[in-house]
Amino acid sequence: MQALKKRILREGKNLGNGILKVDGFINHQVDPALMDECGREFARRFAGVGASKVLTAEISGIAPALTTAYHLGIPVVYARKHKPITMPDQVFLTLTPSHTKGRIVELIVSPEYLAGGERVIIIDDFLATGATILGLIRLAETAGARIVGIGTLIEKTFEGGRQALAHLGVPIESLASIQSMEGDIIQFGPDS
Amino acid sequence: MQALKKRILREGKNLGNGILKVDGFINHQVDPALMDECGREFARRFAGVGASKVLTAEISGIAPALTTAYHLGIPVVYARKHKPITMPDQVFLTLTPSHTKGRIVELIVSPEYLAGGERVIIIDDFLATGATILGLIRLAETAGARIVGIGTLIEKTFEGGRQALAHLGVPIESLASIQSMEGDIIQFGPDS
Repeated sequence: MQALKKRILREGKNLGNGILKVDGFINHQVDPALMDECGREFARRFAGVGASKVLTAEISGIAPALTTAYHLGIPVVYARKHKPITMPDQVFLTLTPSHTKGRIVELIVSPEYLAGGERVIIIDDFLATGATILGLIRLAETAGARIVGIGTLIEKTFEGGRQALAHLGVPIESLASIQSMEGDIIQFGPDS
Repeated sequence: MQALKKRILREGKNLGNGILKVDGFINHQVDPALMDECGREFARRFAGVGASKVLTAEISGIAPALTTAYHLGIPVVYARKHKPITMPDQVFLTLTPSHTKGRIVELIVSPEYLAGGERVIIIDDFLATGATILGLIRLAETAGARIVGIGTLIEKTFEGGRQALAHLGVPIESLASIQSMEGDIIQFGPDS
């Protein structure tokens, strides 16, 4: 998506080691108009998959997942990393390594909001190794839900996430695919 | 706001000890159309305050803050509770007691996105004791920004947050004011 790629080139910072800083419009400060445009684009790309719910992980997935769900007219559930006191004792929980935190984090969803028969689109900010998304997939499958699509704002194709998710046989859509971050540059690949 | 109050009466659960569970449409599963309507209403109420930025705290504040910022046409910043590796070493940080977590949490904002001269609206899901919002106010004031409005989806008027924020002399808007949660009921007070 051109608007997102332009913004990455203008304001994204390649911090080295494959870390792309997009804190000015996605991860800390958020540009709501850009997020709305991204959500509209995901909704367009996933219009035909018959989704009943969007699933994401707190924190950075919330903004694009919310706007996607808005444009699809369905609810969004964000997996929590800490169980709040309002959640029942029996939950779906999985462990996943966090790339940016350097440790294992929990992903928790209440069975109240993820049920058998649901058709789930997973939306997240980044597709890198795919570890977080694989965690969300385990939660959805444990709930008896079916994954019908995966969408990420930014894919780093050199980290192998797309290959790790290929076995699902569902459409994987990224709005900006980054092929290389060698040196100081950010080089986009062909659109997914 | 009628739509929000109706939803609270229909799906909110009074768990006792002043804890209102709204996990089905705000705090875990989110209804994006309702959040959009709430954001539109905040934007209407704060249309005259000349805000340049919306400030909230992760996690539950993100959805209403994003839709408010969208309808005001300004960016939103969410204070982080853990410093990500993309953030500079020098940050604005304050400590605040978390009502629902029973411990002290950090609220962190990068100076890159909160600057002197900004006119800030704070948006959050709940106004209870006001502790989180007071933390956000300290961050904004340390940055040299000025608070021009405070908006929350749900106010529990019996927890004193409005009194704790009164010294600021800015408009405090709640879309649903709950006066009492004694017994099993949820009783709304007059609109703020």
